[in-house]
Amino acid sequence: METVKEARVLTGDRPTGRLHLGHYFGTLRNRVRLQEAGAELFVVVADYQVLTDRDVAERLGEHVEDLVLDHLAAGIDPSRATIFVHSAVPELNQLMLPFLSLVSVGELSRNPTVKEEIGHSRQGSTSGLMFTYPVHQAADILFCRAGLVPVGRDQLPHLEVTRTIARRFSERYGPLFPQPEALLSEAPLLLGTDGTKMSKSRGNAISLAATADETAALIRGAKTDSDRRITYDPAGRPEVSGLLDLAALCLGRSPVSVAEEIGDGGAARLKTLLTDAVNGFFAPLRRRRAELAADRDRIRAVLAEGNEAARTVAERTLAEVRTAMSMVY
Amino acid sequence: METVKEARVLTGDRPTGRLHLGHYFGTLRNRVRLQEAGAELFVVVADYQVLTDRDVAERLGEHVEDLVLDHLAAGIDPSRATIFVHSAVPELNQLMLPFLSLVSVGELSRNPTVKEEIGHSRQGSTSGLMFTYPVHQAADILFCRAGLVPVGRDQLPHLEVTRTIARRFSERYGPLFPQPEALLSEAPLLLGTDGTKMSKSRGNAISLAATADETAALIRGAKTDSDRRITYDPAGRPEVSGLLDLAALCLGRSPVSVAEEIGDGGAARLKTLLTDAVNGFFAPLRRRRAELAADRDRIRAVLAEGNEAARTVAERTLAEVRTAMSMVY
Repeated sequence: METVKEARVLTGDRPTGRLHLGHYFGTLRNRVRLQEAGAELFVVVADYQVLTDRDVAERLGEHVEDLVLDHLAAGIDPSRATIFVHSAVPELNQLMLPFLSLVSVGELSRNPTVKEEIGHSRQGSTSGLMFTYPVHQAADILFCRAGLVPVGRDQLPHLEVTRTIARRFSERYGPLFPQPEALLSEAPLLLGTDGTKMSKSRGNAISLAATADETAALIRGAKTDSDRRITYDPAGRPEVSGLLDLAALCLGRSPVSVAEEIGDGGAARLKTLLTDAVNGFFAPLRRRRAELAADRDRIRAVLAEGNEAARTVAERTLAEVRTAMSMVY
Repeated sequence: METVKEARVLTGDRPTGRLHLGHYFGTLRNRVRLQEAGAELFVVVADYQVLTDRDVAERLGEHVEDLVLDHLAAGIDPSRATIFVHSAVPELNQLMLPFLSLVSVGELSRNPTVKEEIGHSRQGSTSGLMFTYPVHQAADILFCRAGLVPVGRDQLPHLEVTRTIARRFSERYGPLFPQPEALLSEAPLLLGTDGTKMSKSRGNAISLAATADETAALIRGAKTDSDRRITYDPAGRPEVSGLLDLAALCLGRSPVSVAEEIGDGGAARLKTLLTDAVNGFFAPLRRRRAELAADRDRIRAVLAEGNEAARTVAERTLAEVRTAMSMVY
């Protein structure tokens, strides 16, 4: 594996709404760390990949701006990283065509991540877009020749499709794409205010953009249990332990030591401590976010510049792909 | 249905080699007639759609030039028609993404034309590109808002996918695409020199570009039967009747009257008559083709201009699609 310092890294999100603390500790923080370690980040806003969710699609512009804002506020530096939307880079999207020729329908059907997403889908049937999603992701990763792709374990099968496409392309048309490597993240499973996985759709999430008061209110309403003594017991006391995990992440301590500090202080003390921890930790990020949000033109300019930079890279890659495939007439 | 005079018409071919007489009487001649009737033709050279055939893919540049040559020689006028290759129009290809979101995997799996093509494929498995081919075709037809699409009966299910996509897009994002209509062609089934369907891969085809001598040699080697009296009997005497059909098309007469003229002249007389008929009919086309073939720069320029014109149209359509989908940030 190449070192992070020299690596191009492809990451991204579907624009489904504001990022929350689960996203921050799960992925966003790692992206900033990779940037600070010298990696060149490409952050794709996968706007086509939310079309099957009508509620999301109707507020797409807002969601896209929120994603850009969340990244900039977290510390992604647009002068070093490239933030772009799928829909603005036709040459990337065109790579779908040669890449679709390199995988079989059987291989796509067997992809466990696609299978799972189909299962979670609100729709009865699988769209062609969802079915071919791993090939679109291959276009994301290969258009910028990303060497590293931060993924959770459940995303490994997707990356395997990209690796297969890169390998088959090289075998058939000559070497052009490096084999991207997975950067497996040890993302903590962050629970929401109800003790289940933090997720916007469950209404149990604290968003990065929340104010200190909103955060306090959300935490005040969090589910706990009747045991006054606070202990860290993820299996037996998921709600209390989830709050401890979050506090620990914000304080840079272990959840056990946070629990010991609270001791018999009960849920009230835990919630106060957590509120202070979250609001303290995220205060600088939220300040930056509010400043940035006041200047929408700047956000649009960052995205426009990212789109243009991505397009320059994609045009070059597509030209190389067409040359390799003898598609220059 | 709109009148041909005002219609935009989308047609095209996979670049698999020189066109033959079966293509000419089956489709190419109709394209020229549509042009002369005032239709605006878009002719797509579907270069991505031949990738699964390795032998073809290796001589792609030659095949693309041959397709352009055959069209110009037949009378397609590049100052009125737009001839372009898929690979040069990223904005058309990007339309695959929104369109893929509007069809289900089930609908694609049930497409009978795809099923049949899969059956004919030399490969063991279906590629993702073949599976999504009807969606790519929808992008071809809708990017230029073609109102008419000349198709054979076997291609109707493909067009139905396009019509479905156009309708669903309108329902979801507002009216943008007209419903294209099929222009069912009464293409004669032209037999080759062995009495089976004329096809390059069967080695029984007379190409448009063949010389008069090559044509004579191919017809001399054609299969006939031992009955000296020439009669038109497609079911009982397919070889002789196929040659009569071809002669009749070139002479603008009925095959029965050609058979009666030959009478007891036998296969030798039939072949002489057919050779003269083909060489006479195609002499002007072949002369033009030879002149054009001598000026490769001109052919490349025609294609470059067509690509640019198609791209201008595709850029505008994609911008409208993105606006309709609220993908302008």
